[in-house]
Amino acid sequence: MTATTLKTVIGVMGPGKLDPASASDREILTSAYALGQEIAREGWVLLTGGRAAGVMEEASRGANEAGGIVLGILPDADTVNCSSFVSIAVPTAMGSARNNINILASHVVVTCGMGAGTASEAALAIKAGKNVIMLHPGDSAAAFFLELAAGQVKVAENVTSTVALIKSKLNLNG
Amino acid sequence: MTATTLKTVIGVMGPGKLDPASASDREILTSAYALGQEIAREGWVLLTGGRAAGVMEEASRGANEAGGIVLGILPDADTVNCSSFVSIAVPTAMGSARNNINILASHVVVTCGMGAGTASEAALAIKAGKNVIMLHPGDSAAAFFLELAAGQVKVAENVTSTVALIKSKLNLNG
Amino acid sequence: MTATTLKTVIGVMGPGKLDPASASDREILTSAYALGQEIAREGWVLLTGGRAAGVMEEASRGANEAGGIVLGILPDADTVNCSSFVSIAVPTAMGSARNNINILASHVVVTCGMGAGTASEAALAIKAGKNVIMLHPGDSAAAFFLELAAGQVKVAENVTSTVALIKSKLNLNG
Amino acid sequence: MTATTLKTVIGVMGPGKLDPASASDREILTSAYALGQEIAREGWVLLTGGRAAGVMEEASRGANEAGGIVLGILPDADTVNCSSFVSIAVPTAMGSARNNINILASHVVVTCGMGAGTASEAALAIKAGKNVIMLHPGDSAAAFFLELAAGQVKVAENVTSTVALIKSKLNLNG
Repeated sequence: MTATTLKTVIGVMGPGKLDPASASDREILTSAYALGQEIAREGWVLLTGGRAAGVMEEASRGANEAGGIVLGILPDADTVNCSSFVSIAVPTAMGSARNNINILASHVVVTCGMGAGTASEAALAIKAGKNVIMLHPGDSAAAFFLELAAGQVKVAENVTSTVALIKSKLNLNG
Repeated sequence: MTATTLKTVIGVMGPGKLDPASASDREILTSAYALGQEIAREGWVLLTGGRAAGVMEEASRGANEAGGIVLGILPDADTVNCSSFVSIAVPTAMGSARNNINILASHVVVTCGMGAGTASEAALAIKAGKNVIMLHPGDSAAAFFLELAAGQVKVAENVTSTVALIKSKLNLNG
Repeated sequence: MTATTLKTVIGVMGPGKLDPASASDREILTSAYALGQEIAREGWVLLTGGRAAGVMEEASRGANEAGGIVLGILPDADTVNCSSFVSIAVPTAMGSARNNINILASHVVVTCGMGAGTASEAALAIKAGKNVIMLHPGDSAAAFFLELAAGQVKVAENVTSTVALIKSKLNLNG
Repeated sequence: MTATTLKTVIGVMGPGKLDPASASDREILTSAYALGQEIAREGWVLLTGGRAAGVMEEASRGANEAGGIVLGILPDADTVNCSSFVSIAVPTAMGSARNNINILASHVVVTCGMGAGTASEAALAIKAGKNVIMLHPGDSAAAFFLELAAGQVKVAENVTSTVALIKSKLNLNG
């Protein structure tokens, strides 16, 4: 009934294709799960790209198991490839053009790992004036995005500092 | 954790510009409010176009006051014109192209009243193979859409029969 | 180098699925071909939905054979299903959400025949403030769209009167 | 009438905001103009983001003055901010989500200069499997995108080598 009705939405963006046999990919997946859990525990809605793959799946699983709401903005026209941990699915049938919606619907954007889709989301977030917190970006991505928009981009050390950064950015916006 | 995690989403589409001084427009707004209430009571998520205007506003208010979740898919890049009864806002910055997302994200589409935007949503729903239930469409819209897709379109008498039709369509899909 | 660089774009929208065995469908296809020809002869760019099917294909063929430029705004991510008569293809990967782009990129919108996609384009055109000229709409569509927006919709008798109506609308806009 | 009807489209993506008082920005604008000219001379259609600003404007001016066709895919709903050197305007009303269309409609993507929008287009191009040629990307962008997709990304020394790279990529695709 008031502006407080509107829930805070935190987007977690990351690669769909990760290799559980790789130690660095496992670290990304573990962080995604923990991020999902923490976001749910804070009472925020988790937004992901919705698919049952990689960072999307693990973040969604974490939030779901912590009792949170998971909003999945799918590139597809239907929910065939939707994560089973998504609570509200928004099929867009727009392919990667939906990446811009992921950004606009997130109060703060977190990237977890890095890939072409994730890079597009970081860039679109900067373009849209959003704050981006990067976890496990890799050195070259961190260097590039920090140079591109130092004021909007933070590289986080771990999940705990990511959550602290989200809170500080939400206070700035609030 | 299972497919039951995914919530049922019912889209209510209708004009943003209605005149409270007109008896027929007041009837549409009253139905929108009641539809929102019933959808929330059934445990479904209400999807609207998100703006604080007309059918979107009244349906959102109804669902909000009945304790439901309201998903607002906005044509805008931000939430400046978002209804205060929306719980989760998805700004798309896509203008009327977002109408197709409204359709794809709804398990069943209800139109309440009629206008150019509403007509585009009814047509896009038919194109996408969705079921459309029309409340207060007017004679010429009812005749046109029934002729276009008799198998997908039903004209409802009132809110109660609309909810009954939604249930029958959900069972068909389920 | 001046504003006159910008070419006039006329959109022709119509069903992709038509049956050459049906006399009324053949009439629609014949009109689409003639419309494409006339649009090219006037020096206008023809815009279609780009696919090698129905009204899109025949209008494109007409314009191509008359030496015109055909702009195909495809719902797909690639040109696999693109008409071979398209000169410039714009794959959007947006499905039916691309219908709104068809409308916005057209100075005047012509519908030829009627279907769910065509109806969505007529409605989106009205919503966007565009003029719509309808050829072979059928009685119920004509009645509905004329009631919806009498000032923006004209039903044309034939291709010749369609072209005359396009010219009068271009002069109003010009 | 055959597949040869379809014109080759080369996208040139770059910042809209550049400072003519900066020597490095002037170099980017000069390259954009020369790229537009060369693309037109090769008989290719130039695709840009359509606006009368920065790289979009200069590339369009170059192609226009060399007699070429310029396709402007605008983020806006109308042509108010369209470059006067655009021949065919496609207003999308989709904001930055139109960046994905820029990519899908280009046979080869050239970036000239670098910014958040340009970075999103490079990333979306990689995601879509397109070849990207980067002119004046800056060191950190070059390092990042080459690491992200070495097989799809080339950094060009100048306009002449950019055109040579475009030709080699078109032959690979053809």
